[in-house]
Amino acid sequence: MRQYPILRLGLVGGGPGSFIGPVHRMAACLDARFTLVAGAFSRDADKSRTQAMAWGVEPARAYDGIEAMLAGEAAREDGIQAVAIATPNHSHFAIAKAALEAGLPVICDKPMTATLDEAEALAPIVATNGGPFALTYTYTGYAMIREARARIAAGAIGRVRKIMVDYPQGWLSEAIEDSNQQASWRTDPDRAGQGGAIGDIGVHAFQLAEYVTSLRVTDLVADLPRVVPGRRLDDDCNILLRFAGNVPGVLTASQISTGERNGLRLRVYGEKGGIEWDHNAPGDLTLLWPDARTEILHSGGPDLDETAQAATRLPSGHPEGFIEAFATLYSDFADAISGDRSKADGLLPGITDGLRSMRFVDLAVRSNAARGWLPFPGETQ
Amino acid sequence: MRQYPILRLGLVGGGPGSFIGPVHRMAACLDARFTLVAGAFSRDADKSRTQAMAWGVEPARAYDGIEAMLAGEAAREDGIQAVAIATPNHSHFAIAKAALEAGLPVICDKPMTATLDEAEALAPIVATNGGPFALTYTYTGYAMIREARARIAAGAIGRVRKIMVDYPQGWLSEAIEDSNQQASWRTDPDRAGQGGAIGDIGVHAFQLAEYVTSLRVTDLVADLPRVVPGRRLDDDCNILLRFAGNVPGVLTASQISTGERNGLRLRVYGEKGGIEWDHNAPGDLTLLWPDARTEILHSGGPDLDETAQAATRLPSGHPEGFIEAFATLYSDFADAISGDRSKADGLLPGITDGLRSMRFVDLAVRSNAARGWLPFPGETQ
Amino acid sequence: MRQYPILRLGLVGGGPGSFIGPVHRMAACLDARFTLVAGAFSRDADKSRTQAMAWGVEPARAYDGIEAMLAGEAAREDGIQAVAIATPNHSHFAIAKAALEAGLPVICDKPMTATLDEAEALAPIVATNGGPFALTYTYTGYAMIREARARIAAGAIGRVRKIMVDYPQGWLSEAIEDSNQQASWRTDPDRAGQGGAIGDIGVHAFQLAEYVTSLRVTDLVADLPRVVPGRRLDDDCNILLRFAGNVPGVLTASQISTGERNGLRLRVYGEKGGIEWDHNAPGDLTLLWPDARTEILHSGGPDLDETAQAATRLPSGHPEGFIEAFATLYSDFADAISGDRSKADGLLPGITDGLRSMRFVDLAVRSNAARGWLPFPGETQ
Amino acid sequence: MRQYPILRLGLVGGGPGSFIGPVHRMAACLDARFTLVAGAFSRDADKSRTQAMAWGVEPARAYDGIEAMLAGEAAREDGIQAVAIATPNHSHFAIAKAALEAGLPVICDKPMTATLDEAEALAPIVATNGGPFALTYTYTGYAMIREARARIAAGAIGRVRKIMVDYPQGWLSEAIEDSNQQASWRTDPDRAGQGGAIGDIGVHAFQLAEYVTSLRVTDLVADLPRVVPGRRLDDDCNILLRFAGNVPGVLTASQISTGERNGLRLRVYGEKGGIEWDHNAPGDLTLLWPDARTEILHSGGPDLDETAQAATRLPSGHPEGFIEAFATLYSDFADAISGDRSKADGLLPGITDGLRSMRFVDLAVRSNAARGWLPFPGETQ
Repeated sequence: MRQYPILRLGLVGGGPGSFIGPVHRMAACLDARFTLVAGAFSRDADKSRTQAMAWGVEPARAYDGIEAMLAGEAAREDGIQAVAIATPNHSHFAIAKAALEAGLPVICDKPMTATLDEAEALAPIVATNGGPFALTYTYTGYAMIREARARIAAGAIGRVRKIMVDYPQGWLSEAIEDSNQQASWRTDPDRAGQGGAIGDIGVHAFQLAEYVTSLRVTDLVADLPRVVPGRRLDDDCNILLRFAGNVPGVLTASQISTGERNGLRLRVYGEKGGIEWDHNAPGDLTLLWPDARTEILHSGGPDLDETAQAATRLPSGHPEGFIEAFATLYSDFADAISGDRSKADGLLPGITDGLRSMRFVDLAVRSNAARGWLPFPGETQ
Repeated sequence: MRQYPILRLGLVGGGPGSFIGPVHRMAACLDARFTLVAGAFSRDADKSRTQAMAWGVEPARAYDGIEAMLAGEAAREDGIQAVAIATPNHSHFAIAKAALEAGLPVICDKPMTATLDEAEALAPIVATNGGPFALTYTYTGYAMIREARARIAAGAIGRVRKIMVDYPQGWLSEAIEDSNQQASWRTDPDRAGQGGAIGDIGVHAFQLAEYVTSLRVTDLVADLPRVVPGRRLDDDCNILLRFAGNVPGVLTASQISTGERNGLRLRVYGEKGGIEWDHNAPGDLTLLWPDARTEILHSGGPDLDETAQAATRLPSGHPEGFIEAFATLYSDFADAISGDRSKADGLLPGITDGLRSMRFVDLAVRSNAARGWLPFPGETQ
Repeated sequence: MRQYPILRLGLVGGGPGSFIGPVHRMAACLDARFTLVAGAFSRDADKSRTQAMAWGVEPARAYDGIEAMLAGEAAREDGIQAVAIATPNHSHFAIAKAALEAGLPVICDKPMTATLDEAEALAPIVATNGGPFALTYTYTGYAMIREARARIAAGAIGRVRKIMVDYPQGWLSEAIEDSNQQASWRTDPDRAGQGGAIGDIGVHAFQLAEYVTSLRVTDLVADLPRVVPGRRLDDDCNILLRFAGNVPGVLTASQISTGERNGLRLRVYGEKGGIEWDHNAPGDLTLLWPDARTEILHSGGPDLDETAQAATRLPSGHPEGFIEAFATLYSDFADAISGDRSKADGLLPGITDGLRSMRFVDLAVRSNAARGWLPFPGETQ
Repeated sequence: MRQYPILRLGLVGGGPGSFIGPVHRMAACLDARFTLVAGAFSRDADKSRTQAMAWGVEPARAYDGIEAMLAGEAAREDGIQAVAIATPNHSHFAIAKAALEAGLPVICDKPMTATLDEAEALAPIVATNGGPFALTYTYTGYAMIREARARIAAGAIGRVRKIMVDYPQGWLSEAIEDSNQQASWRTDPDRAGQGGAIGDIGVHAFQLAEYVTSLRVTDLVADLPRVVPGRRLDDDCNILLRFAGNVPGVLTASQISTGERNGLRLRVYGEKGGIEWDHNAPGDLTLLWPDARTEILHSGGPDLDETAQAATRLPSGHPEGFIEAFATLYSDFADAISGDRSKADGLLPGITDGLRSMRFVDLAVRSNAARGWLPFPGETQ
C-alpha cells in the first residue's frame, strides 16, 4: 500500500462563482494525496474567508492574494507545500512566477498564460526553479485517453495517418458577456488573452491531439470567426493541420455550437485501424477495424495499459468522470513532488505543453489574419 | 454560501481489498461535508493502522473494531460525530446497533442486514435512538434518478402502468469464490445472508423501482437459480411483480450475465409517456413520447428539478459518476445530521427502505422455493 | 450468377389500410425472386382491383378471395406459383389450407393461426401437401440474427446460461380500437385469436429466442394483464421461462409501453460471453466479453457467417432494414420452392415454428389464468 | 390511392461486380413506380444477357451499350420510358447526352460527370431537351434529411451559423487498386475524373450541406492529400468553408479513415439550436437545445414534415435504409416524369446540384494546389 505523506495545498482562485476552483479542491482531495489548508480564494478578503469556512480551511489561512499567502504560509511550520492556480488567464503568469520563485511546486489551469510572450517568459523560470510545474489539461487524466496514447505508441493501429479533434460547446451562442461571470472574462481580451474559444478550449483539443499521438503539428491554416455580433475574440475555430510526417488533421473548437455541451472528441486513424474517444462517454475507448468490427474497451478492464489502470479507482461499470480525471492529474503532481517522476513523467502535462499550446494559439491567430497556411515555429515536416 | 460545519466521520471497514470502503472515504470528503478522522478499517490492528496512514488518519485513531472505536472516540473532545459501515453484510447489524446506541448517526452500506430477522430487530433501535440512519443505495444519489422521481411524481408520464428494472452483471460467471475476496463473502450464506445476487444487487433494483415510482410491490413470483455449479446462493434472479394498483413489473438481477459490467437500467411507462435511466450513461434521462420522439435530459441542465440540481456539481457536459452519486448521499446524510431534514427527507434512503428490501429478499427466496406467486407482507393491491 | 426463374406470386390481403400487405409486396420483389401477378387484396372486388392497379397487377387478376384466385389462376398457363397470406389471423388457416391443398407453396404471416386447434389442424395438411410452407417471422431474416445463431451454435459464447428477450411497443397505450384499423382486429378475440400482445408480438420474441439459441422452452409462468381499461385481450406480457437444461429466461412483450416503437431486443449469456441484438440498430451484433470489452459486428462485414452474408445486399455501412429482412425470407422461400433446400433449411421458419408458437400462446394464457408455472407440452428439462 | 402508371426503365451499368447497379434496380422497383425492362448492363453482350436473365429482363432487351439500347427500344411499342445510369464516372456524360437527346428522362449516379467541362457541357443539353434529369444523391432520399431541411427552412434552429459535414470511409486504406474492381476505377483519373475521394464522396457531403441548409458555399481552402503511397488521386479531403452570409463550415471526406464504413454525418448549428444527422442511424434526427436537452425524432413519426412522411414506407420502429432512400429518389423521379413536379421540385437533385458539385471539386483541387482560400465561382458573401 502506497504510504506517501499527504501534501498541504494552497489554492489561488476558487472564490464565489468560480467554476474550476471547486474542481481543483475536489480533485486535490479525492485520492488522499493533498489536503487543502490555505487559499487566496478571492482578492476580497471577506469573500476569501467565507470560502475558506465553507471548505473547512482555517480562516486565518484565507488570504487576499498570492503574495500574502506565500508570506503567511512561509511563516508556518505546517505551511503549504504546493500552489494551485485557478484564476482567469491573465493572472496565471504572475502567480506561477511568484510561487515558483518561492520554491513551491505549481499546478496551474490552462491556458498556461494569456499571451505567448508570457509563456516564453515563464519557461526559464520553471527551468531555473525546478518545479514541478503542472498544467491541468483535464482530458489527459482520463484513463481511456492514456489507454489510447499507450496503444498508439505500441503500434496498435499502425502508423498514424489522420487526426481529427473536435470540441463543440454552445454556451456562448448568445451574447451573455454582461450577465455571466464565466463568459465575462473568457471573452475579454484583457483577461482571456489572445484567444477566445481557441484559448479556452482549442488548446485542450490541440494538446490532446499531440498528447495521444505523440505527433507534433508542423503547419496549419485557421479560420477563427467571431460569430456572435459584438464579440471581441473568436468564438468558433476551424483549423486544417499537418502533423510531422505530413499527416493531415482537422481541429475544430466552438463555443457557438448551440446545444452542444462539452463534447470533445478525438479520432485517430492509422494504417491498421482507427481509435476514437468521446467525452460524452469518457470511460469508453472505441477501436475501429477494417473488418467492419468495432471494439469498445471500458475503463476498469483488466487488460488495459498500466497507465490507464493507474488512472482508475473503481471496477469497470462504475463510471468515473471529470473530477476523477482531474484528480488523476493531482495524483501525478503528487508523484512528481514526491520524486516519483518515473510514474508521472510524460503523462502529466507541463511547461512544454503550455508553451506549445500558446504557440499554437498565436499561430492560429496569425493564420486567420493572413488567410493562409503558416508553419509551426521550430517544427519541420 | 452554505456554512455547515464539517463533520468528523469514523469508518468501519475499508481495509486492504475492500471495494466499497474507499468509495465511502472519497464520497464522504468530496463535498467538504465530512472529514475522515477515525476508522476500524480492519479487525487486524496492523492493517487498520496501515490503512489509516494511507488515508491521512492519525494512527492512534485506527481501531480494530467498532467497540474500540466507539470507546476511543468517546474519550476525545474531537471524537467522531458519525459512523459509516462498509463491512460485509453479516456484521452490519451489530455495528449499526452499537453505533446507534452510542448516540451516533449511522450511514450503512446495503443490504441493511444479512437477514430479515436482523432487519426487524434494527428498526426499533433506529426508532429509539433517533438516528439519522442512512443506507447507501448509491443509485438514488444520481441526479437523473432524482429527476425521474420528481417528474413521475409531478405526473409527467401520467399514471404509471408498467415498471421494468434490470441489473445485469457478469463478474460471478465463473466459480471465483476461492480466489476473489469480494466473491468469497458475497456468495457465502454465512457472510452474505439469505440472498446471493438478490441480496447484493437485487435489492438495489427493488429499492430503485419503488424509490422512483413511489409505488410499492404487492405480489411477486421469483425464479432464483444457482447457475454456476457449486454456488451456494442464487446468482441470477428473475421476478415478475405487481405493484400497488395492479401495475405489472419485471425485475431481473444477475451476476452470471457474462460480459455485463454494472448496467442497472430502469424503465417506467405511464399513460402519457415512458422514462428510462441506464447506469451506462448515468447523466442522461430518457423520455419516450408517443409521437415517435425521444427526449434526453442531461444532468446539469438548467430546467431540472431542484433535487436533481442539488445532486450535481458541474455544468452539463462534465460527467459525474459513481463516486459523486455516493457523495450526494453523504451530503444528504450531513443535512440530516445538521437538522436540515427538509432537504434530505424522502430522498435519503433509510430504515424503511432497508426493511422493505429485506422483506423483498425473504419473499423472493420463499416464492422461488414455493414456485408460485406470493403477496408482499402488509401490502394490498 | 444465380439463374433461378422468377416465380409468380399471388397475395391474399394487402388492401387499403393494410400494414403488412405492402411489406410482402416489396419484400417479394426486392431480390428479383418473385413477381406479384395476382392478388385477393380485399374481399371487396373494387378495392381489390384498385389495389392491383396501384401495384401494376392486371385488373383481371385481382380477386375477391382465395377461392376465386385459386380457380382463376389455375385456369391460366402463367398462373401463380405461390401464395402469400397477409390477412388478419383468423383467416390464415382457411387460406393456407386452400392454397396448400391446391398444391401451391405458401408463405404466411405470423401468428400462424388464431388458435392452437387450428395450428394443430394445419400441421398434417402441410405434411400431406408438401409445401413449402413458410412463416414470415421477420426478425429471422436479419443478417445479424443469423450471425448470432451461427456463433452460438459454434460455441462462441460457450454453453448458453441465460436468455432475455424483450419486445416493447407503445402503440396500444390508448384505447384506439374504434379508430384504428390495425388496432381494431388485433385486439378483437374473434379476429386476433387467443392472444393479444402475446399473439401479435410475443410470438416473435418466443420464436426468436428459440431460433437463435436452438434451445426449447420447457416451463413458464406468465403474467398477461389487460392494462388499458376495456381491452378484451392481454396488452402486456411478462413471462419467466426455463429452457432445456434448466436455463433461465425472461420474455416480455408489451403494447402499452408508451413511447416505445418496435424495440425487440435479445440477449443471450453463455459461459464465455454474451451476445446482444436490438432492432433499433439491426445491422449490429454486440458481443460482450468478460474482460470489459464489447465487440460490435456490423452487417456486411467480411468475416461473418455465410448465412449472414447471404442475408445482406450491400457493403457494410449501408443500412438495410425491415423490408430487406422480410425479403430474405422470400429469398429463402424461393430457394425452398426451387428445391434448393440446403440453403433454406433450418433458416426459414415453417410449420414447426408455427406450431410451437401457438402452443406457447396457449400455455401462457393458461399459466396466467392459473397464476403459476406450467410445463411446455412435450418438452422435458 | 395513387394510380400512376408504372414506368418502363432501361438501366446502363449494373453488370457483374457492380455495386450501385443492383441498388438502382431494387430502388426503382421498390415503390412500384418503375419496372426494369431493358438494360445495357455491360459492354460485353454475353454478360449483359446473363445479368438480364438474373433480373427477369427479356434477353432480347439486354444490350451492349446505350446506343444499341436506345435504338432497340425506340423500335418497340412498349419501349423504355426512362434511362438510369450506373456506370463509372467517365461515361456518364456521353450516356446522359444520348438518352436526353433521344427525348428520354434520365436518372444518373453521382458525380454527374468526370470533369467540370463535361458538367458545363451537359447543362444546356438538359435545358434544351427538358429532362427530367435527376441525380441519385442518395442521402437526400432519407426521410430525416428532408425533415432537417424542412425544419431549418422553417426556422426551427434560427439563423444557421455553423455547418459541419464529415464523411469518413476506410475501404481505401490499403492500395487495393489492382485487386478490387470498385477501387480500380474510383482511383483512376481516367475513369473517376478530377477527384478521388472528393469526387466519389466529397460531392455527397457538399451537396448534402447545401441541400439541407439552402446555403451556398462562397469560399474554401482545401487540403487534399494522397495518403496511401502510389495513389493517383486524393484519398482524404479536409476543407474549410464559408457559406453565404459568412457562415463558417468544415467538410471532411476520407477513404483512408481505417475502420470507418460509411458514416456520413451532418451537423448544423443555428442561433436557437443544433441539428444532427448520422448515416449510422439514418432514421433518427437529433435536435440539440441550449437547455441541455437533446431531442431525437424518429422516422415514421406522426408530426414530421410531409416531405419526410412521403419518404417513409413503414411505421416508426421499422428501420428503412439505403435502398429505401434510393427508392425515394426514384419515386420523385417518377413524379417528375408524370408531371407531378410540385412534389419533386426542390427535393430531387438535378442539374443544378450536379453543376455545383463539379465546380466544388474543381475549386477544391485548385485550392489544394494553391495552398490557400479561393472564392466559389459566381457566389458572393
